[in-house]
Amino acid sequence: MKKNIAVLRGDGVGKEVVKGAIEVLKAIGEQYDHEFSFQHALIGGTAIDKEGTPLPADTLEVCKHSDAVLLGAVGGPKWDQNPPHLRPEKGLLQIRKALNLYANVRPVTCFNSLLDASPLKREIIENVNFVIVRELTGGLYFGKPSGRKIENGEETVVDTLSYKRVEMERIIEKSFEMARARKKKVTSVDKANVLESSRMWREVAEEVAKRYPDVALEHMLVDNAAMQLIRNPRQFDVIVTENMFGDILSDEASMLTGSLGMLPSASLSSNGPSLYEPIHGSAPDIANMNIANPIATILSAAMMLRLSFGMEDEAKAVERAVEQVLAAGYRTADVVQFPRKSISTTEMTERIKEAL
Amino acid sequence: MKKNIAVLRGDGVGKEVVKGAIEVLKAIGEQYDHEFSFQHALIGGTAIDKEGTPLPADTLEVCKHSDAVLLGAVGGPKWDQNPPHLRPEKGLLQIRKALNLYANVRPVTCFNSLLDASPLKREIIENVNFVIVRELTGGLYFGKPSGRKIENGEETVVDTLSYKRVEMERIIEKSFEMARARKKKVTSVDKANVLESSRMWREVAEEVAKRYPDVALEHMLVDNAAMQLIRNPRQFDVIVTENMFGDILSDEASMLTGSLGMLPSASLSSNGPSLYEPIHGSAPDIANMNIANPIATILSAAMMLRLSFGMEDEAKAVERAVEQVLAAGYRTADVVQFPRKSISTTEMTERIKEAL
Ligand SMILES: CC(C)[C@H](C(=O)O)[C@@H](O)C(=O)O
Ligand SMILES: CC(C)[C@H](C(=O)O)[C@@H](O)C(=O)O
Repeated sequence: MKKNIAVLRGDGVGKEVVKGAIEVLKAIGEQYDHEFSFQHALIGGTAIDKEGTPLPADTLEVCKHSDAVLLGAVGGPKWDQNPPHLRPEKGLLQIRKALNLYANVRPVTCFNSLLDASPLKREIIENVNFVIVRELTGGLYFGKPSGRKIENGEETVVDTLSYKRVEMERIIEKSFEMARARKKKVTSVDKANVLESSRMWREVAEEVAKRYPDVALEHMLVDNAAMQLIRNPRQFDVIVTENMFGDILSDEASMLTGSLGMLPSASLSSNGPSLYEPIHGSAPDIANMNIANPIATILSAAMMLRLSFGMEDEAKAVERAVEQVLAAGYRTADVVQFPRKSISTTEMTERIKEAL
Repeated sequence: MKKNIAVLRGDGVGKEVVKGAIEVLKAIGEQYDHEFSFQHALIGGTAIDKEGTPLPADTLEVCKHSDAVLLGAVGGPKWDQNPPHLRPEKGLLQIRKALNLYANVRPVTCFNSLLDASPLKREIIENVNFVIVRELTGGLYFGKPSGRKIENGEETVVDTLSYKRVEMERIIEKSFEMARARKKKVTSVDKANVLESSRMWREVAEEVAKRYPDVALEHMLVDNAAMQLIRNPRQFDVIVTENMFGDILSDEASMLTGSLGMLPSASLSSNGPSLYEPIHGSAPDIANMNIANPIATILSAAMMLRLSFGMEDEAKAVERAVEQVLAAGYRTADVVQFPRKSISTTEMTERIKEAL
């Protein structure tokens, strides 16, 4: 098969980790006789510096004409004082909206060889394996009005949490589809004892559930979910929630495993190319040192193979290679444990290619 | 001194744990020669059953004429299918607004004798000692509009996150005041890379900080805060944040210590009596079994002594008694560890009174 991949390296360690993923994709291409072509474009701080905007029109064109998008990471202290529309994150928010990336999918799995790197006790996180499905193009992130005003002489600010029924439906459906291929349980997280939007969310979840009689649905309040993730993360299979709750809970969840540098994500489009990126950020403090962990990005590339290209065998091959290299004891500095010696970004990539 | 305490036992284990706290307060009264009088009133499900509303006008009157309010917990499956305005939680939201309980204060401390009950590793939580200060009468909880509408033929729902500048100011000031009496560090949590309200929050925090040059201010994004609470909770002294973020983060934080049944809270009023309650809920599954842990409510009573009545010695006496009983090995069932035998709610209360 022939596939065009748009590559947005972004800022900080983004460049280094994406390089690793591209090499792995090339190796897969040779092995399985696929033709992957890579087209680079700018996003984030680098785009602000070169084009004056965090998401240049060109970049969007390249993405729209691709079969899938591979993203590194955006952001850094250099742009932290910029006005909102000239900040790297704005590029991320814009591309989500422009490509209709409505479903952010984050698997949370524990690598057995890394259990001891977690702040949680081994018996809590052993065999944890769930997925968070976060709505990505609605809610407080995009609702209007959003701004300040003077009301009865007082300075007031509002943001708006807004959803259409169809937006809730499609993300909840996606979570049921995923649960069907897994352990058949969906935990829908909301704040139905306070928010009108959550009460509608709960209603939609009940309706969708009727069409999936083989999948169990449970509702959980977001504050309780924040507790349960720590208390007993093995209870979860697929968690589905709105944008802001998903932002908070998925970062909390990523910390459970002690493998922040290992966790991939997919942002699925409703009608075009999907986007794949590591969940870790641009980590400016360790950029250009060749010590960043490329595994999260390499596993994101595996998700791309599976979800965008339907290449299940190829995806599995990458995942197996990663596991093999970890089992052999290789570690980048972020997860290394005394007294093991850590290896570099490029060396980790080499090892994984060898293991393919 | 003479003090009137309004007592809202509420539902589930609320009744049992409040009973424990009242006994301890009486013992303190005798010992230190104070006259505490207790006036009971209804709230939550019990109030719905008896008066048809979760917060009867009578109850509010009793509270308004008190020097402080002691609350058990509200809620239970019996009322879960009720319409929003007839749900026990509504009583809680209404009393917060009616009494101007703008600042929810939750200390998160680890009891050394209970370290092993935590899902986190001992080395992560040892000596954790911070306070979460949550704004309690604004934000998404009370903003208007909040409801459904048809927009261009599509069913849409909105909730509104709204704050006045003065509402931000007073809660942030409170957090600086508290930090001044502690380790002099405030972590202000927001989502300034996305929300207008957070950008204003950050601005107000900077302004307030200028008036407290002896206190350090740091800003943290809410998703990062959800990670940092697990990764390194010892970094925190005082965390201040808006209502919904505070709801999520404070429940997450309460799970760190493995002592959910031990954590108290205060909800401070801007202009009248403050309210004190355990952070655990009504736990209907263990109600009326005399096994609930009364310590969270007893420690909430200690906060009342300190913060509403200025009785520092008396507060300390209660806290010391609790520590002593724990150190002696007494545990209620929620925190008992094999092979220790657990004691009942009433027996735990007796032990603490003895230790006074
Ligand atoms: C950078 C930021 C806008 C973004 C978000 O909040 O969605 C990030 O935290 C994420 O989760 O991808
Ligand atoms: C019961 C509910 C409305 C309440 C809240 O969300 O504030 C509770 O979770 C709390 O934290 O006191």
